[in-house]
Amino acid sequence: MTADNFKWLKQSKEKIGTTVTLSGWVRTIRTTNAGVSFLSLFDGSDLSGIQAVVPDTLANYEQVIDQVSGCAVCVTGELVASQGKGQQVEVQACHVDIIGEVEDPQHYPIQPKRHSMEFLRSVAHLRPRTNVFAAVTRIRHAVSMAIHQHMSNAGFYWIHTPIITGSDCEGAGDLFRVSTLDALKPPLNTSGEVDFTQDFFGKETFLAVSGQLNVEAFAQSMRHVYTFGPTFRAENSNTSRHLAEFWMVEPEMAFTDLSGCADCAETLLKGICQSLLTHHSEDLAFFDQFVEKGVLARVTNLASQGFERLTYSQAITILEQSGQAFEYPVKWGIDLQSEHERFLVESHFKRPAVVTDYPKDIKSFYMRLNDDEKTVAAMDVLAPGIGEIIGGSQREERLDVLTKRMLESGLNPDDYGWYLDLRRYGSTPHSGFGLGLERLVSYVTGVSNVRDVIAFPRTPGHAPY
Amino acid sequence: MTADNFKWLKQSKEKIGTTVTLSGWVRTIRTTNAGVSFLSLFDGSDLSGIQAVVPDTLANYEQVIDQVSGCAVCVTGELVASQGKGQQVEVQACHVDIIGEVEDPQHYPIQPKRHSMEFLRSVAHLRPRTNVFAAVTRIRHAVSMAIHQHMSNAGFYWIHTPIITGSDCEGAGDLFRVSTLDALKPPLNTSGEVDFTQDFFGKETFLAVSGQLNVEAFAQSMRHVYTFGPTFRAENSNTSRHLAEFWMVEPEMAFTDLSGCADCAETLLKGICQSLLTHHSEDLAFFDQFVEKGVLARVTNLASQGFERLTYSQAITILEQSGQAFEYPVKWGIDLQSEHERFLVESHFKRPAVVTDYPKDIKSFYMRLNDDEKTVAAMDVLAPGIGEIIGGSQREERLDVLTKRMLESGLNPDDYGWYLDLRRYGSTPHSGFGLGLERLVSYVTGVSNVRDVIAFPRTPGHAPY
Repeated sequence: MTADNFKWLKQSKEKIGTTVTLSGWVRTIRTTNAGVSFLSLFDGSDLSGIQAVVPDTLANYEQVIDQVSGCAVCVTGELVASQGKGQQVEVQACHVDIIGEVEDPQHYPIQPKRHSMEFLRSVAHLRPRTNVFAAVTRIRHAVSMAIHQHMSNAGFYWIHTPIITGSDCEGAGDLFRVSTLDALKPPLNTSGEVDFTQDFFGKETFLAVSGQLNVEAFAQSMRHVYTFGPTFRAENSNTSRHLAEFWMVEPEMAFTDLSGCADCAETLLKGICQSLLTHHSEDLAFFDQFVEKGVLARVTNLASQGFERLTYSQAITILEQSGQAFEYPVKWGIDLQSEHERFLVESHFKRPAVVTDYPKDIKSFYMRLNDDEKTVAAMDVLAPGIGEIIGGSQREERLDVLTKRMLESGLNPDDYGWYLDLRRYGSTPHSGFGLGLERLVSYVTGVSNVRDVIAFPRTPGHAPY
Repeated sequence: MTADNFKWLKQSKEKIGTTVTLSGWVRTIRTTNAGVSFLSLFDGSDLSGIQAVVPDTLANYEQVIDQVSGCAVCVTGELVASQGKGQQVEVQACHVDIIGEVEDPQHYPIQPKRHSMEFLRSVAHLRPRTNVFAAVTRIRHAVSMAIHQHMSNAGFYWIHTPIITGSDCEGAGDLFRVSTLDALKPPLNTSGEVDFTQDFFGKETFLAVSGQLNVEAFAQSMRHVYTFGPTFRAENSNTSRHLAEFWMVEPEMAFTDLSGCADCAETLLKGICQSLLTHHSEDLAFFDQFVEKGVLARVTNLASQGFERLTYSQAITILEQSGQAFEYPVKWGIDLQSEHERFLVESHFKRPAVVTDYPKDIKSFYMRLNDDEKTVAAMDVLAPGIGEIIGGSQREERLDVLTKRMLESGLNPDDYGWYLDLRRYGSTPHSGFGLGLERLVSYVTGVSNVRDVIAFPRTPGHAPY
């Protein structure tokens, strides 16, 4: 029942002149008075699909031209070089089998026209049949595979860190609780609190917001490692830029300072973009034409331009001297806003930049304290058109300094026993960063709402699929 | 600060005679009276590491031989062909920098001796420094990457299906609830039940036990797709073969019947094993020697032997005629137990087997009903030494039959609106299967407890890391 996918068929010049079977769905049908009809077929393997030329000599010709739109079909015929514009091959059909019909065609949600993204979110189970969502899915796959291939080729081992955890990894952010206790009448302890010792793991547990602390343990044993998996933040921010569930890649490197960390981030982003340009130029051109003019140039630039490097203090000076009227006033100590980040990379440098050494008070406890005791060895990678796309740091490897920073941040070191323990035994300078998959896919496709780059959209206050 | 990892250095013959820097940890130190000491170093990139020859002419020689065991070090010196047995290269050290010391060496948990797996579970943050756990981590990485490469090369797109879901995908199994409601005093509705409309997603949500139902939607648009991510079962089975959180790969193929599904499963398993034999023979040989005699032959056989194909009914006949005294008596209709599965592949066929067409009453509602109306198009892939390693089926693509099977299984079709809806629009015969990562890693390494093939062990009743 299986057959070559359309993408491969089109690349197999030796198949021209042979009989092939196409398994896919009918996007459109065009009938003519010249005794033939044209079926535009897709199977998800590429954007443009293959055209089948259906002669009226077929036994089921009338049924085909009446009913076939949207149907799943198997079309058998000779693969020939195409006379039509914009396609290399087509199939001269000698059999068209309708495998799966469309019940009630007028109400089939995916009509051959342009649909709004809002509407498509309401029929998420069918939206991969549209050009735009299938292309998003291919790009998401390609970005994900490029990440794995790049990291693996660079000698990094993929670590599956725990999703269900006993502690809030970063000491910040709202968490999803994971429990098997009775929701209505949970068991109580003698203090009248919920008795989580009776829960599945014997303590209160949450969905991990990051794999970083766990993967640091592996970096301290296997040098170059990374996580790539789902992470969770129960932040009820109804923006198009945030998801409660998203995938993140988190490389972590022992024997590596912040400069090496920035090198790794720049190389990874370039590698991903280069892979997209090599293998998915058809989809990128589609997004450039129909979704956001300029995404092709964006990907090309990210793949080729050197990233500027500067400190936070230098960035503040540039912003202060820019003469720009920013919504959020600039002074040393503020967290950079999107408008500041974008001014730096879009107007000032006109290329991506890595900003390092942020004030310690706006960054996490685990980031390495610099000798000035005012800044930490943090970095943000900023890109034109989006601002921050990667955040990372050198980690604090000194036990005494880390403990002090925890206390300053209101954390109880007793909750981080093994994380502190790592600093007691052969601890090395180490660094790492996080890159959110959905944000990157949104960036390289121009599909601006992150709910449109995931499989099934789930929005706070709305039932998930 | 970064440098080539040890695995690459050993493969770079052109580096012999050059000065290199090794960044890693000291496994053991052997001092001699001949004016030199030998440091055995590892960096996680491979099993055997590299030896550094340290002359007593080094300024810090006394400090090194006194303190260096377990430490993180950077060793600089000339890479030379080794005189020693079992190693190709070594480094003649001219500098040894101790980067990270071991505080209180007597109490460092990872001493240069053999530790029990039970003990290592209690120091999970340090256990990747042992040979066995680093090798497990490399094999787990290699299996995972082989899965991705095999699927991607076969034209499958990787889909990230939702982890937080609104329904129990398979209508079976205990679920973890995901919530942000107050655990002690959740809001109640007028019926006195927990008011999940006030929860994060506006309804009660759980961790997904499978991505199958979701990925079927993508197969019905993009033909060949797969999931590879974490799944969750809150089953409090304290066996060494089950985890509450585990990774699973789930390929799903449109236009594909059960036979094509079995082909895909066999090809995937062979591809994974072949990749391990090609790239990780050193680690496999280690497991064969120190963990379970025979795992190397097991992997070799799985990569090369053809898989037997037979129906469940044929399997029952073989078992009934075997003359074996099984603990669980054999008759048509029973679920096959591990003893039955292993008899088939270990004693009878002496090779892996795919058993198909199980009684419908012991299988899930979504499996396609055969024409006999007694069996469904299900399959289990059985392997010597473990029994079932893959489970799959052709899916029921007929709306009326599926609805009937749901009702028979006690499920409410209204809870599966979009899943049924898929059958209304260009539905095709489709098939898929699930392969658990931890079970496979346990199988190819001989590390029998699945808690020892994950990053951080979490056991019901015990606090997770």
